[in-house]
Amino acid sequence: MDQTPLPQINHQHETFTEGLLLDCGTVLAPLQIAYRTYGTLNADRSNAILICHALTGDQYVAEQQPLTGKPAWWGNLVGPAKPVDTNRYFVICANVLGGCMGSTGPRSPRSTGSEDLWGIDLPPITIQDMVRAQKMLVNRLQITRLFAVVGGSMGGMQVLAWASLFPEAVFAAVPVATAPYHSAQNIAFHEVGRQAIFADPDFFGGRYWEHGVVPSRGLAVARMTAHITYLSEAALTRKFGRRLQGNNALSPVLFGERFAVESYLEHQGSSFVRRFDANSYLCITRAMDFFDLAADHGGSLASAFRGSRTRFLLVSFSSDWLFPTTESRILARALNQVAANVSFVEIISDKGHDAFLLDEPDFHRTVAGFLGGAAEAAGLK
Amino acid sequence: MDQTPLPQINHQHETFTEGLLLDCGTVLAPLQIAYRTYGTLNADRSNAILICHALTGDQYVAEQQPLTGKPAWWGNLVGPAKPVDTNRYFVICANVLGGCMGSTGPRSPRSTGSEDLWGIDLPPITIQDMVRAQKMLVNRLQITRLFAVVGGSMGGMQVLAWASLFPEAVFAAVPVATAPYHSAQNIAFHEVGRQAIFADPDFFGGRYWEHGVVPSRGLAVARMTAHITYLSEAALTRKFGRRLQGNNALSPVLFGERFAVESYLEHQGSSFVRRFDANSYLCITRAMDFFDLAADHGGSLASAFRGSRTRFLLVSFSSDWLFPTTESRILARALNQVAANVSFVEIISDKGHDAFLLDEPDFHRTVAGFLGGAAEAAGLK
Repeated sequence: MDQTPLPQINHQHETFTEGLLLDCGTVLAPLQIAYRTYGTLNADRSNAILICHALTGDQYVAEQQPLTGKPAWWGNLVGPAKPVDTNRYFVICANVLGGCMGSTGPRSPRSTGSEDLWGIDLPPITIQDMVRAQKMLVNRLQITRLFAVVGGSMGGMQVLAWASLFPEAVFAAVPVATAPYHSAQNIAFHEVGRQAIFADPDFFGGRYWEHGVVPSRGLAVARMTAHITYLSEAALTRKFGRRLQGNNALSPVLFGERFAVESYLEHQGSSFVRRFDANSYLCITRAMDFFDLAADHGGSLASAFRGSRTRFLLVSFSSDWLFPTTESRILARALNQVAANVSFVEIISDKGHDAFLLDEPDFHRTVAGFLGGAAEAAGLK
Repeated sequence: MDQTPLPQINHQHETFTEGLLLDCGTVLAPLQIAYRTYGTLNADRSNAILICHALTGDQYVAEQQPLTGKPAWWGNLVGPAKPVDTNRYFVICANVLGGCMGSTGPRSPRSTGSEDLWGIDLPPITIQDMVRAQKMLVNRLQITRLFAVVGGSMGGMQVLAWASLFPEAVFAAVPVATAPYHSAQNIAFHEVGRQAIFADPDFFGGRYWEHGVVPSRGLAVARMTAHITYLSEAALTRKFGRRLQGNNALSPVLFGERFAVESYLEHQGSSFVRRFDANSYLCITRAMDFFDLAADHGGSLASAFRGSRTRFLLVSFSSDWLFPTTESRILARALNQVAANVSFVEIISDKGHDAFLLDEPDFHRTVAGFLGGAAEAAGLK
């Protein structure tokens, strides 16, 4: 497996020397936020849409990823004449705090000019910290109110945190395939991934870069486990079933043949380690685990949104078992409790959690329609 | 984590010097089958019930496990005055071929007197091989026909293989929480467990005993992953929810606190490595993956049971997502197609796959009732 450390690319970014006071009490300074924009900000700066990415996503929402050369990760939703139409809207997407694509994270120096990196010692980051960092970027771009904030999975958690922390700055919110808290089962899946990373001898207590290696096997196992949870059983069966495919390179003696689903997972694991940092994976999975909006509001989820004038579109997918419809329903109920403006759509799909990234016409029509209506209400031209 | 190799206990066993011709074409000789019996075989040798254990089970179905000191793993179902009543039936339970509790497996010598162990070079074992080995034991006990064969999960696969390979030797069959094939999702979960074991530097290409260690961290990660699949989300939420519990011993700096569900999983992982052999885990998960009764019968599951006079009781559990009710239904349909005698009960439980091992009164009543009726039909006193 590839052991080469991730290259450091010079991503477009803003630097905030004053730093950010994190939920844990530490000031992280300087703060760097890497981001990309698409389309044109209109004269009254009212057509900005912020896209929040998921656990292993990045800021390259609508263009080729420079490290992997892969196409835009949400190119079917965001772009010219797409549901999030960059001919009409000014789209911003930032790498999350704790990430590894140019925003401050485990690969950042501990202080300006320092040779030593944060690594695993980066103070714990919360979803709210990520959102506060994005708010600093939005302020720097001189945008007072975002027309919309849109995101799926962990991106959806950020959308919820935006609507809760900065209700006046969010005209419309689209949390997709997400939940107001991370479930015990999801924490459990994250934990086995982390344990696989910790168990890798190349982890070196989180200081692997000092040894010129990365804990690639552990990170690959973490990715493989997570990947299963992104798909539905139906999708796995349709794609692979019990089809055999070639020999088992990893253990030819014991097993001889291998299943196509195994080759697929192995590919997912090994390509992931070439684009993602293990300490970032630890940091961000932990942020998700600790996300619990109700707990942050004295046990009342509704309180997180009291008085909100934001228009919400909640979207879930019927076969998503990582963030099942029941969790979006809890959210819808809480929003109804405080008389928020909320639409809730469950998209029928057998593609599992991953559906939010795939070509799902019903989903895309729903988003386009909602944004169109909201634009009218906002008086956007 | 505990690195001590598993102690070799002298388990009760039978030896078959002629060995067994495996599905892969190799003769495994000598063959040793470790087993336990409970109750008394009646005069006409007609009251024997064979219990087939699951992936990580063993022959100690109704008594304390000698290695761990833990209570009988199916003590709520099997024992005096229990649904499988050892006052009435003669119960046999054997460690599966490929296991690590005394039957021939990766910890066995390659040949009589050899110092070298099979390890990962053990020829691949199938579910049918396990059953043929059990048949040799049953023959040695001079039992021509088993009154019943009962098993859950991988034990249920063995029950199906028994009914298919030796229909005249099985009066009644009780496959519980199982399926006629292993699904793509289940293969995928097994594969990440195996990759975690392979990634452990103490695996030493499967020859870890030569180094006086065991790949405990990899095996623990495998167990943790699998354990999540044994529970339902509802069960995890009820047991742990998002409760925090003490500090994170494994990584105090990054995470500070840890969730109760994480401590629980860690305990499951670390206690498992003290009782199970990593090569056995590889060997047996692979046997499950390759199980596909329909494929073995030209694509027709019904053909596996054509002409069968066995009475079947199929049991599934409503919240089991590892072996969901849909898969038992496929089985029921195939049995109906060949006019087999089949009852099918879905037990309503929110405890997931694990429910078959737990105190589920509906399940126990169902088994007791079915066996009582079958005993009458068989003319058992």
